Formats: sequence, C-alpha cells, structure tokens
Amino acid sequence: MACIVQKYGGSSVAAVDKLQKIARLIADVKGQNNDIVVVVSAMGKTTDELVTMAREISPKPPRREMDMLLSTGERITMSLLCMALHELGYAAVSLTGSQAGIITNDRHNDAQVIEVRPFRVQDEIAGGKVVIIGGFQGVSYKRDITTLGRGGSDTTAVALAAALDAERCEIYSDVDGVYSADPSITAEARHLPEISYPVMQEMGMAGAKVLHAHAVQFAKEKNIAIYARSTFKPGRETVIRKLSPGTIIGVQAVVSEKQVARIRLHGPDALTLFRQVVEHLESEQIPIKEVNLTETITGGGPSTASFVVSVQNVFGWEQIKAALMEKTGAAIAVDTDLAALSLIGEGLNRNNLTLLETVGLLARNGIPVSGITTTSFRISLLVPRNQIEKSVRLCHSRWVAIGSTT
Amino acid sequence: MACIVQKYGGSSVAAVDKLQKIARLIADVKGQNNDIVVVVSAMGKTTDELVTMAREISPKPPRREMDMLLSTGERITMSLLCMALHELGYAAVSLTGSQAGIITNDRHNDAQVIEVRPFRVQDEIAGGKVVIIGGFQGVSYKRDITTLGRGGSDTTAVALAAALDAERCEIYSDVDGVYSADPSITAEARHLPEISYPVMQEMGMAGAKVLHAHAVQFAKEKNIAIYARSTFKPGRETVIRKLSPGTIIGVQAVVSEKQVARIRLHGPDALTLFRQVVEHLESEQIPIKEVNLTETITGGGPSTASFVVSVQNVFGWEQIKAALMEKTGAAIAVDTDLAALSLIGEGLNRNNLTLLETVGLLARNGIPVSGITTTSFRISLLVPRNQIEKSVRLCHSRWVAIGSTT
Repeated sequence: MACIVQKYGGSSVAAVDKLQKIARLIADVKGQNNDIVVVVSAMGKTTDELVTMAREISPKPPRREMDMLLSTGERITMSLLCMALHELGYAAVSLTGSQAGIITNDRHNDAQVIEVRPFRVQDEIAGGKVVIIGGFQGVSYKRDITTLGRGGSDTTAVALAAALDAERCEIYSDVDGVYSADPSITAEARHLPEISYPVMQEMGMAGAKVLHAHAVQFAKEKNIAIYARSTFKPGRETVIRKLSPGTIIGVQAVVSEKQVARIRLHGPDALTLFRQVVEHLESEQIPIKEVNLTETITGGGPSTASFVVSVQNVFGWEQIKAALMEKTGAAIAVDTDLAALSLIGEGLNRNNLTLLETVGLLARNGIPVSGITTTSFRISLLVPRNQIEKSVRLCHSRWVAIGSTT
Repeated sequence: MACIVQKYGGSSVAAVDKLQKIARLIADVKGQNNDIVVVVSAMGKTTDELVTMAREISPKPPRREMDMLLSTGERITMSLLCMALHELGYAAVSLTGSQAGIITNDRHNDAQVIEVRPFRVQDEIAGGKVVIIGGFQGVSYKRDITTLGRGGSDTTAVALAAALDAERCEIYSDVDGVYSADPSITAEARHLPEISYPVMQEMGMAGAKVLHAHAVQFAKEKNIAIYARSTFKPGRETVIRKLSPGTIIGVQAVVSEKQVARIRLHGPDALTLFRQVVEHLESEQIPIKEVNLTETITGGGPSTASFVVSVQNVFGWEQIKAALMEKTGAAIAVDTDLAALSLIGEGLNRNNLTLLETVGLLARNGIPVSGITTTSFRISLLVPRNQIEKSVRLCHSRWVAIGSTT
C-alpha cells in the first residue's frame, strides 16, 4: 500500500468550508487504498493575529513563549480537519509535532529537525487511520515546544515523508507550482514543470515563497521528490527532484526579497567589530544571509566587512539595530532600505557575461547596485527597495522571457 | 517562602490590556518574596469561537479532537501572559497541562485528574521563575491531550495547590465571591464571606458558576482553602474551607440550572430500558445528575425510572436524544423544557418543613413541580424552564433574604 504525505498551506485551510473541501480530497486518496499522512498549516491569518497580540505586549517577546503561542495555530487546523474527515465517515487522528516524533534542537523560532521518531504515526496508519499532523512545530530534547520558522510546515512534510519512506510528498498551496518570477510582478512569468533541488533551494533562500529552503535541503538529502500543486485548481504542478547535470542551463528564475538589511563595518579594528556583530546576531538568532570580509593589503586584520540579513520576520528589529549601533559606536553602518534581486539557475556563472550584462542593464535604467554576491547557482544584487519590482521585470525580460534556457 | 497558586478566569484575561494588568498584580505578589504559580483560562470568548467552528463541521465531533482543539485556548493566554511579565522584568515560563504533570484518565471532554507530577513546576519555581500554567487540560496515560470539562481550570489550580503544598489557592473572576443567589436574577442576593466545602460542592452541582464542583471536591480532600475573589475589584472575598459543624444552618443559597433534561421509563421491562439508557449515556460520556428507580410492589423488576441530565454543554444532544428514542421505542419519554431549582445549606433537611413550604409556595404561584430530589445539603425541584427565574426569586425571598440563617 502506497504511503502519501500531503501538506496544505495556510490559504488552503483558511476557513471551515475549505477544510471540508480538503477533507473530501483526502478521503478520495484514502479511498483509493492509500495510506495518507497530512501536514497542515495554521488557518489563514491565524499566525499573523497571534503575532500581532504578542507584539502589542512586547516588542521582543521571549522566543520560547512565541513558539508556545504560535504552535496553537496548526493544532486548531488539525483537530478541525479530523472532525471534517470523521463527518465523511473516515477515521482520523490529529497529532502534534511532539506526538508525531518531530525532535528538534532548542533554537526557538527557527529550530532544526534533528530526528524524526514516527512510531505513533506508524501505529495510527496501521490502525487504518488518516493521520493529520500539525506542521511547523516540534519538541526539543528539553521537552519544550519549538517551531521551525515561517514555512516550516514544508519541512515537517518532507521530514515525515523521509522517515515514513513515503512514495511521494505533495505540497499544496494557492499556486500550481514554481514560476520563473512572481506573476504579480511580471506578466511574463513562466510556469516551471520541473526543477532541481539546488535551484529550488537557492530560490527559497532568495525569497521565493512556494517552498521553504530547509524543506528542500531535507528532500535532497533523502532523495524525496516534491510535487508542488494548487489545492483547488488541479492541473499543472512543479516537481522538485534530482535532475541529471546539464538538463537545464542558464537563468531559470528571477527572485526578489523585499526587506533586507546590510550591516557594514569600517576601520582598522574591523575584526573585533566583526566578532561583536556576529555574536550579537547569533544571540538574537538572526540568520546571516551573506558575509563579505576583505583584508587590507598591508595586513593587520580586515578593514571592511559586511553582512546581509533578512529582516522580514525578525521580532524587534529596530531594538536590535539600536543595540548594535550602541555597542559598536560610530564604526558601523546599517542600511535598511534595501532589497535583494537574485538570478537563479544551473551554470549561470560559468562565465561572467550574465553578471556584467545584468549590472549594465540596471545601470542604464538608473538603478544603482550596492552589493553583489555570486554562487554557482545564483547572482544576487542589492538594489534600492523602491526599485526592486522594476529590477525584476528588466532582468526577467532579458534572461528568462526570451527563452535563454534550453 | 510562601507558595501561592492563583487562577484567572476567561473574563479576567479577555484582552491584551487585561493580561498586562494581571501581569502587574502577579509581579506585586512575586515582588513580596513569594513563589507564585498562575493557572489561566482561555481568553474571553476563545473557547466558544472554537466550539462554534467545530459545530459548523460536525454536530458531534470526536471527543479526542475537541480536546486537541479547545486546549489551544489556554496556551494562547499563558504564553501571552509570560510575555507581559517578561516586559515587566520578571522571568516567567509557561507550561502546558502535560508539562505541568497533570495526569488524567482518558475520558475526553470530562477527564478526571488522577495524579499530579509537578516536578517541572518545582524546578522552574526553584529557578526563580513565575510559572504560568494552562488550566483545563491534562495528558492521559495514552499521551493524548485531555480537558477537564468546562470550569476545569479551577480543578487545575486546586490540584496544583495540593501537589505543591501551597499556602493558599486564589480563584479570580469577575465576581467577588459566592452569593446566596444569582444577583442578575434577584437584587436580594447576599454576598457569602465564608462557606463550607460540601455546600459549595452542592452549589456547583446545582449550576452555580463561581467554582467548579470537582475543584471543590479536590480542595476538600486535600484541605486546601480556596479564596474566591474579583480580579479587578479587590475587597470582599468568599473563603471556601472546612467549617465546624453547626456554624451555619438553614438555606444558604438558591441556585438554578437552566438547561436540564429528564428521561423517564415506564412499563414492566423498565430494568432492561434502564440498562440501555445508562449504557448509552455512558458511551456518550454524559454524566447523570440524578437517578430515581422504583420497584413495583408485586416484584418483577422496577416499573418506573428516571434520569436527570444537564444538556448545556452536551455536543449533539438532539442526535443523542433521537438515538435513545429509536433504540428504546415508545417506552421512553424525554422532557427537555425543564430547569432545576435548588435550595442549598447545611441541615436544611433535618425536618421536612422546608420542602413542604417550598412546594406549597411554588404551587400558590402557579409553578408546577415535576420532580423532587433531596440530599443532606440540598433540595432540588424540576420546574418549567420559562418559570425558573420567578421560582428563584420566590424561594430566595422566603428562605434567604429574611435571614433564616444564623
């Protein structure tokens, strides 16, 4: 009997009638003699509403308590979905992350799954039940509730698919897969039927919202194919899987992240500053997206260093920034009006022509580039936040829409 | 160092600003060098909203899933209250019922606390923290989340006070203690400064909402004094404790329960029917408030039997009623337009005059009495639901307001 893991995102479970529709979809799959495990997100705006209440109380609430608070959202969804299946005559049981055996480290708000012990899930499956699991949450070895960060329900689904040796992992949302750019930014955006793990990871890191980067990393390690589909509009899908090298070459997608901040350090004592900043960011559990560090020609330690961090889901960013500025004095500058533009694809940096042409294209259109990073799958550029959408449209027209991919 | 357990009810924690006020009250107690454990209910209408969603999906949702759903309410409150204390500079930690060691049986929606293992609570207290605990919930030996029934947060507080050997247990709500009748029904209702455990238990069983009957039973067994107080209007309180016999005699309070149903059985085979009904009610986990069973003079099994059940918080009562009627055929009658009126006090049944006079008083006022039960602390009468408030006023004027108590 095939085991299928499905995950439904927040907009798919936003209201009672949507839960009832999903229950029918799940019942169909179960009725076709499959074992099925379903991972759910919090309903619609639930998480945002909980975050709003927390912020009314504290600009920087304790992270453990944020996890306790936010984990309730998925629990509401999962119990209601069980009730809807029960109404259709299907036995179903809801399990928390803890009950499902999602063991994490204790990095609250951004915990890593370190082990999955799905014994109870397997028992319930063996008992013929549909198993509904709260995504985004786990339990630390200290027996505290943790969350995996925004989008972490994807990670829950993939981790469970791997632990259960599932036939496939289906991720349902309100879009029918991955596009070459955000269709709300450019009408030229194309649907991508197939994509490799590393390209999807880089897209997630660069701000694409369809799939969480950690989830893709997990899938890659365990070689689990992910099917990204639309919940209520069946048809197209994007399959994220291992592709033979050279299958697709060139820029496949243009991705943007709207709210990033750059921290720059200057002066002869930059290495001390560098340590202070890294320690401070680590104590606040803010992941660093990029680091650049350049030593002076004369030696005596680095003279410039910079960090790029995403500030979209950082609690109390203004406080953190003020503490950083106070701790390090005048030798630090924090730029917060930036956005990151990323070109992503296999082999796009085999030569420097893509990078050169992109910088030139933006310059001709009056868009200043204030930072560049490249990896083997990505070119990322920092541009002013108010010009990010125009930048996406220019680059997508130049590199993707004309069909430079094979 | 004294250990104090406090419990705050739903209306006391209904909004963020109320949580902030309560955090200041807690900080004051902690600042006076006390250890403090706080049990919280769900915020305001949260539980009702969750129940409404569940009922939209199913008239009779699985009880295990109801517990999973409803237990989220208290978790939201407790994490937000921790954040508010943190803002005031106090270390606080929230614990679920499971983390606090509230072990129950697996009677979902109405679980009994069978053991309290407060090791983690004690550890956190020893670490100097204010401990905030989600009331109303526990964990079964099967490791499923259970709830203790409506008002179960009181039980959580008393059970913890006993397990922690606390100096006292303070129950905060929007009223400043227990009254001789519901003040919204009669303006003559009097505040009771002191009351015995059994009288409070009978009041709770009879429908008084200040304190949950199971909680009082727990307090009586462990000899924990309960202080019922108003959260935001300090001043008067009602202390529920062990009183010397004879301290207070006569009718102390008149209590009503608006939604009860009576199930009546007739005929020679009443014993078989009786068994069927009890089994059915047990399978639905509906507690029976009263049973009457009368054998025929000629023998051959009982010829009449009746049950009274509270239907206020019963999910899918109409379905249950229909199933009962179908299973047992014509030999059963279910009356659902009834209410229960109860006179409560020590020694009120030492003679039958109170009962006789009460029935006469109601008859003179055109209120038919269709059922009577007495215990050593209580006289309960079934009256038509639409005449319950008038009945309360009549009885309170006759027995309490004139000062028949010493």
